[in-house]
Amino acid sequence: MSLYPSLEDMKIDQMCRAQLSEIKSHFTVQSTGAPPASPAYQYPSFTDMPVPVNNGPLYPALGEFMGLELSQAVIRENMPEYSQVALLQQNEVSLPRTNTGLIAPLSSQSAGLQRAQVTHGLRELLLCKDKDGKVGVRVKAINNGVFVCVVVDKSPAAMAGLRFGDQILQVNEVNVAGYSMEKVHEMFKKSPVNGIKVVVRDRPFERTITLHKDSVGCIGFQFKNGKIVSIVKDSSGARNGVLTDHQLLEVDGQNVVGLKDKHISGIIENAPQVVTITVIPSFLYEHMVKKMAGSLLKNLMDHTIPTL
Amino acid sequence: MSLYPSLEDMKIDQMCRAQLSEIKSHFTVQSTGAPPASPAYQYPSFTDMPVPVNNGPLYPALGEFMGLELSQAVIRENMPEYSQVALLQQNEVSLPRTNTGLIAPLSSQSAGLQRAQVTHGLRELLLCKDKDGKVGVRVKAINNGVFVCVVVDKSPAAMAGLRFGDQILQVNEVNVAGYSMEKVHEMFKKSPVNGIKVVVRDRPFERTITLHKDSVGCIGFQFKNGKIVSIVKDSSGARNGVLTDHQLLEVDGQNVVGLKDKHISGIIENAPQVVTITVIPSFLYEHMVKKMAGSLLKNLMDHTIPTL
Repeated sequence: MSLYPSLEDMKIDQMCRAQLSEIKSHFTVQSTGAPPASPAYQYPSFTDMPVPVNNGPLYPALGEFMGLELSQAVIRENMPEYSQVALLQQNEVSLPRTNTGLIAPLSSQSAGLQRAQVTHGLRELLLCKDKDGKVGVRVKAINNGVFVCVVVDKSPAAMAGLRFGDQILQVNEVNVAGYSMEKVHEMFKKSPVNGIKVVVRDRPFERTITLHKDSVGCIGFQFKNGKIVSIVKDSSGARNGVLTDHQLLEVDGQNVVGLKDKHISGIIENAPQVVTITVIPSFLYEHMVKKMAGSLLKNLMDHTIPTL
Repeated sequence: MSLYPSLEDMKIDQMCRAQLSEIKSHFTVQSTGAPPASPAYQYPSFTDMPVPVNNGPLYPALGEFMGLELSQAVIRENMPEYSQVALLQQNEVSLPRTNTGLIAPLSSQSAGLQRAQVTHGLRELLLCKDKDGKVGVRVKAINNGVFVCVVVDKSPAAMAGLRFGDQILQVNEVNVAGYSMEKVHEMFKKSPVNGIKVVVRDRPFERTITLHKDSVGCIGFQFKNGKIVSIVKDSSGARNGVLTDHQLLEVDGQNVVGLKDKHISGIIENAPQVVTITVIPSFLYEHMVKKMAGSLLKNLMDHTIPTL
């Protein structure tokens, strides 16, 4: 079954396939027009010939009429502009895919889509401490799991690629399931300066939605303090299932937690035509940043654009 | 960066890589032992030779001592049991990957992992009505989105592969963002018998966790009415970040919504060594099944094992 990152990609893919099969039916006219199956068999009369079922050629092939054979060589020689089509016909339809395996004729070139990808997979990081003895991470316990809620800009944690929403599974080979925020902060404090081994699961509560700007650059939702509050009717947001009561965490993979709405709007405006947003249900976000000073998120948080 | 579906896969992969690089360092002794860069250069004395930096060979190569060359051909001829290692050395480490691109030496063969995969991508389905004029789907509106909360067993919806938690984006080319449950049910009712085009996004609120049974078959969590209530210390569940206050929706891709706990336990017991569970935060699950009779879920819901 074909899967797509956005509805726009699906529509374009369907259109491409329809056009290609149209072109192909023209090019394969001569072979489908010939009597099928047993070539030795001659039909007794014209009415006995099997009627081509749906998508059969409307007209007999050129070869039958004038002995003209539209072979690949003839096409290349006489109609160079069609040689690519003939090539497509040979190689079957192969449209661009993202590295998640989704078919994406429009979005596959988007660096934002690749940067923003949420895999829910595990990875191991090696952290160290900076000159002040800090790793640069603050966590929060949710449902017996430990989640990253601050990654300090330019800190070892930021350099290692830790992100808001990552679930910490192990610190120096110790499972932290069920640990409190304080206990995990204490573990980091007591760690050696170098070689702090951390195993994390990639942002379990988050997901991405890929949107396409319309002619006036709108992607189709309003937000207040980073929280999506309404969806524009029949916009890309509505088509692709953006939900209200969700917090905007990243735009094209760039963290926007704690930024002013105006700043976030600017980032979206400056983004290319394809924009991928990363969201989390608001109740989870609010739990993660509860009791945390807004200035902490705004001033300390790592808001750099991740490198691929 | 390497990504894994489970902590067990990560550990095994790391072990394999460590062993392979160990083996490789033995096999490449002869080449690293030879003077590097410019082969014409002769070192004036033994002490002038560059000391091999970390991981360099401890002993001079066999070739230097006895003129014995351990080429691929010699290995194949004299030590067939090592020929596979030599092959690995040639082709670089290539460990099994899942079709999500995660490295999974243990889990990649698991059919459950493949069946359970949540892609968050879009797909288009063609539905029809059964002899009673029903499509076999019930929906619920959450945050201005429309979500599938019942897929009736053996119904057209079940045949088409609709799942609990799928977000419906379009019905017959109409965006349903912001629609109420009643309005969407009405749309299905008014649809023609055949060719009902539905665009869905794959279970946005859900994610999977891949677990490995221990020697007594335990995967590491307790549940009550399908809701995960506690995690077993240092179990596979704890290692892989299973969270409490989450509802168990699928086991190896098989829907278990509405089933009795005993029945679910049986399914887990009968599952192979690698088990993939699909979960959703409880508050979302409870919203989806609110006001719905438990018998509806238990008796009507499609609980078949999906085909790959």
